[in-house]
Amino acid sequence: MRELKTVIDEIAAEYRACEERGQVATYIPELAKVDIGSFGICAVTADGAVASAGDAEIPFSIQSVSKVFTLTLALGKIGDALWRRVGREPSGNSFNSIVQLEYEKGIPRNPFINAGALAVADVVLAGHAPKVALGEILRFLHFVADDDSIQIDEAVARSEQATGYRNVALANYMRAFGNLSNPVEMVLGVYFHHCAIAMNCVQLAMAGRYLAFSGRHPTTGARVVSPERARRINALMLTCGHYDGSGDFAYRVGLPSKSGVGGGILAIVPGKASIAVWSPGLDGQGNSVLGSLALEMLAKRMGWSIFGA
Amino acid sequence: MRELKTVIDEIAAEYRACEERGQVATYIPELAKVDIGSFGICAVTADGAVASAGDAEIPFSIQSVSKVFTLTLALGKIGDALWRRVGREPSGNSFNSIVQLEYEKGIPRNPFINAGALAVADVVLAGHAPKVALGEILRFLHFVADDDSIQIDEAVARSEQATGYRNVALANYMRAFGNLSNPVEMVLGVYFHHCAIAMNCVQLAMAGRYLAFSGRHPTTGARVVSPERARRINALMLTCGHYDGSGDFAYRVGLPSKSGVGGGILAIVPGKASIAVWSPGLDGQGNSVLGSLALEMLAKRMGWSIFGA
Amino acid sequence: MRELKTVIDEIAAEYRACEERGQVATYIPELAKVDIGSFGICAVTADGAVASAGDAEIPFSIQSVSKVFTLTLALGKIGDALWRRVGREPSGNSFNSIVQLEYEKGIPRNPFINAGALAVADVVLAGHAPKVALGEILRFLHFVADDDSIQIDEAVARSEQATGYRNVALANYMRAFGNLSNPVEMVLGVYFHHCAIAMNCVQLAMAGRYLAFSGRHPTTGARVVSPERARRINALMLTCGHYDGSGDFAYRVGLPSKSGVGGGILAIVPGKASIAVWSPGLDGQGNSVLGSLALEMLAKRMGWSIFGA
Amino acid sequence: MRELKTVIDEIAAEYRACEERGQVATYIPELAKVDIGSFGICAVTADGAVASAGDAEIPFSIQSVSKVFTLTLALGKIGDALWRRVGREPSGNSFNSIVQLEYEKGIPRNPFINAGALAVADVVLAGHAPKVALGEILRFLHFVADDDSIQIDEAVARSEQATGYRNVALANYMRAFGNLSNPVEMVLGVYFHHCAIAMNCVQLAMAGRYLAFSGRHPTTGARVVSPERARRINALMLTCGHYDGSGDFAYRVGLPSKSGVGGGILAIVPGKASIAVWSPGLDGQGNSVLGSLALEMLAKRMGWSIFGA
Repeated sequence: MRELKTVIDEIAAEYRACEERGQVATYIPELAKVDIGSFGICAVTADGAVASAGDAEIPFSIQSVSKVFTLTLALGKIGDALWRRVGREPSGNSFNSIVQLEYEKGIPRNPFINAGALAVADVVLAGHAPKVALGEILRFLHFVADDDSIQIDEAVARSEQATGYRNVALANYMRAFGNLSNPVEMVLGVYFHHCAIAMNCVQLAMAGRYLAFSGRHPTTGARVVSPERARRINALMLTCGHYDGSGDFAYRVGLPSKSGVGGGILAIVPGKASIAVWSPGLDGQGNSVLGSLALEMLAKRMGWSIFGA
Repeated sequence: MRELKTVIDEIAAEYRACEERGQVATYIPELAKVDIGSFGICAVTADGAVASAGDAEIPFSIQSVSKVFTLTLALGKIGDALWRRVGREPSGNSFNSIVQLEYEKGIPRNPFINAGALAVADVVLAGHAPKVALGEILRFLHFVADDDSIQIDEAVARSEQATGYRNVALANYMRAFGNLSNPVEMVLGVYFHHCAIAMNCVQLAMAGRYLAFSGRHPTTGARVVSPERARRINALMLTCGHYDGSGDFAYRVGLPSKSGVGGGILAIVPGKASIAVWSPGLDGQGNSVLGSLALEMLAKRMGWSIFGA
Repeated sequence: MRELKTVIDEIAAEYRACEERGQVATYIPELAKVDIGSFGICAVTADGAVASAGDAEIPFSIQSVSKVFTLTLALGKIGDALWRRVGREPSGNSFNSIVQLEYEKGIPRNPFINAGALAVADVVLAGHAPKVALGEILRFLHFVADDDSIQIDEAVARSEQATGYRNVALANYMRAFGNLSNPVEMVLGVYFHHCAIAMNCVQLAMAGRYLAFSGRHPTTGARVVSPERARRINALMLTCGHYDGSGDFAYRVGLPSKSGVGGGILAIVPGKASIAVWSPGLDGQGNSVLGSLALEMLAKRMGWSIFGA
Repeated sequence: MRELKTVIDEIAAEYRACEERGQVATYIPELAKVDIGSFGICAVTADGAVASAGDAEIPFSIQSVSKVFTLTLALGKIGDALWRRVGREPSGNSFNSIVQLEYEKGIPRNPFINAGALAVADVVLAGHAPKVALGEILRFLHFVADDDSIQIDEAVARSEQATGYRNVALANYMRAFGNLSNPVEMVLGVYFHHCAIAMNCVQLAMAGRYLAFSGRHPTTGARVVSPERARRINALMLTCGHYDGSGDFAYRVGLPSKSGVGGGILAIVPGKASIAVWSPGLDGQGNSVLGSLALEMLAKRMGWSIFGA
């Protein structure tokens, strides 16, 4: 494990000093307050070792990274029936595009674009009160991350709720096609709140372990999902995890991963490691600039690309 | 190697008997003549072992699988400068769509949709006569497949040239945006002919070895491409190799691969194997129905998914 | 005036007996209750004569025909500044499409598609309470129709408000681009209610007189709008008044007109007549089948096409 | 007729002095050579009077204005069967867009966008040699304009043929959908040549008389088309004659008209006049800047808008 810790430290040293950082997301006012100079990284390996550096213990808004966990819950509830309501293809459009929904009659392209995550939230909600669904999401995170302190940042949730007109449009549009079964406001409530969950890099890397290690929770050995489901979620992260920059990310980094506009990225090295990185400056597609570069360097130095040595 | 041979034989037995086979491509008249009952499979592993079954030695039209090889040549000629002319993102559209070209001003989404492969053919052509470029493509295949008998099926090339109006439209459209530098007819000539290359499963699996084994030609140890380039081509195959069905293929099979409307698929297991499968019946996205199912079963039984055990 | 009355009677006789009537709009549940056999027609000429036939005094939901009147009010409030927020071009899409809004950054193509009418409603609302804006719209109709009994059908308004998810999506989407200045719910409230205004053919034909007669209110001689504005509203009706069927309507009928999914159409013969027709069966574009045919016949028999004798 | 001549002279004086003229079309190299300072205007009225001013006798490339005449010929050949191959709706896209063709399976929106005019050229060609079809088009123009000197500018035709990749793309794309029955090169040959017809304002205004005067050739009284067909062509000019600026032109000018990228516009005042104006500077939609302004002023001063006095 020595080697990984050395690589992680080098990467943190290099990127904390980097000046080119992109732009902090401004469309959610509360997110615009984050210090753009932040940089954290953490990797958890199969032996349980945890290597971290930089601001790895400062919580940030995980935003769309949360969609990996709600997808896991929705598949647990209704299994492959989910795919009647959401596709599994890259969208070829930005994360909040509504064009594809019109052409494909209310069926979002995949569970990681906003429209798809709203359908997933609708499945998780399943007729319960939003609070109940959010409690279930948090309990799931507490379990997979071995950390009960993870919670929702209410200020971010409110900020998003007050300004998220495009998401309100997407939800109502899907409802018009009958692809939401709970009241639109409730689905949006669950969505805005699970995006506002705050985690730090260590917590996020811990939470991703079940995807890296064949669906098992390493501490207890409990099966979180089947090995096949873990593989499939990883495949979706690879093809759809970075919106319209997914192909480029696969080309450069070669790891299944999911980004969020809070600047966090969760990356999976199947069989080997779960990694979280955080740097709030974003590129034009809404993905963390330094986070992507750090993962590219880490995958290269460790020989971790899934596409070959 | 015993085990792999057993699995391959089981798969061939199962799928040769299967009735649900999709439709043979009819838009190229010559392809419509193929026997829909054909099924061949071949896998070549790191130790040089070759396991094949079914119609593995009957040649078929590799069609779009050839785009993997022309991409390799174009990257060899101009390197990353290629990415100023072609993107690296899944298209979210069918293989012959022209819509994206208009919205993105003549820059195709990726090198595996038809428009992207035309830009790649333009790079390979590089001011030479079409015959010269086609000779270079064939020599490359002879080398990587260790087989000098591979050649172009002229009847298929003529058939495609006589009916390929959408490809003529795509090429002229890109030319209007200045994204072809050779005469349109020459680029189309190269494209129609490299799509008409005939190979059998054994030849195709052999040809794919450099992608499976870190860019090296296993017989001679010669470097065909750098390990990094092999990884990157694999990444592109994973995200874009099956047109608008790429996400679904990654989800079900979990291997970088490239399909063609002749019913062939080349799949790569990084570090472990190069696989070719052929069955001419296609699904609605233009991918081989039984070929996809056979690869799904093979990846599962051998534990070969790149997304985890 | 004899002749016109004869023609009107013939048309009413012919179309009341017609079997092919299209489909009553079902997406607003309350509208689905209307008797599909209804047919009414009324024309008011420059000399003040009123010729009507059929169910010309049965009120119906004017729906999108109301957009002509809200446009008139919005132009009265802010004049050409309206065109910074709404275009003047046919949309090439269906009335409730959201695709164009994404490509053109929240600026609707014209004031008669739903998105454009929401922007117009926002201008009419102008910071007041929805009730105030609706009062103003009704007072305007009472004045131009010389009839104080025109009112809103609250059951239709409620029905639309309960099911109008696509309109909610459109409004939120425009709000995301900053193209609504009042709260979304208020704009939608005004929109759903002005679409739910109930009028009969006589009232509607009377209300359209200012567009036929150079912007003047014929009874009092008062100027409702300038002659130029009347011409311009007529031009918008001609090019955009029938959604994606506007070109066909101009080709067949040759009169500026505006249809609604309640089955009503207001048509203007500049300098000569204001016509209202009502038949609730719709074609695929949401325009009244028999209403269109009746206007085609009327324009032909009277020589009223604006495109030549 | 005195008054019209005065108005025409005023307009010519005003616009010949105007500095803001837009840009000469550069995408056809030969057109870029035209003097941007040119301005000509001519109106022919029902009594046969001809009022002209400025460069009214200098020939220019009529370009898309020619589509009005080929449409007339195609309707003469196959009548309403034409509408199975071309629509009658404004396109909502630029004149050379290919997007709509993909979504609507090779059926162009209307006969005035490039794709639609190619379908029309295919109908006019009708299995003959391109020369025969072009001869027929010229003879038609000689007849309706009473002027046998009108001819094709071969230099412009060659220039367009050498650079018209987007039109080649459109034609091949339609051919792929079976919406061209003659060889693509022949259809393109006819198209490029009829667009390259050179006429001056007097000739063009004379040629448009049959549309203004109920389908009759005023000099001989011969019926060129039925009154109904003249009305319908006028309707198409109004809704589709200025590409994506048709709505705006109807709003401002209020006359059926057709523009070309050579800077010419033919405008029809049903029952009253046929007008041609020419100024080569274009706006962003490809319509003559000063030509549009001149027609707006002329329609206003003469009270000629079809939308009311």
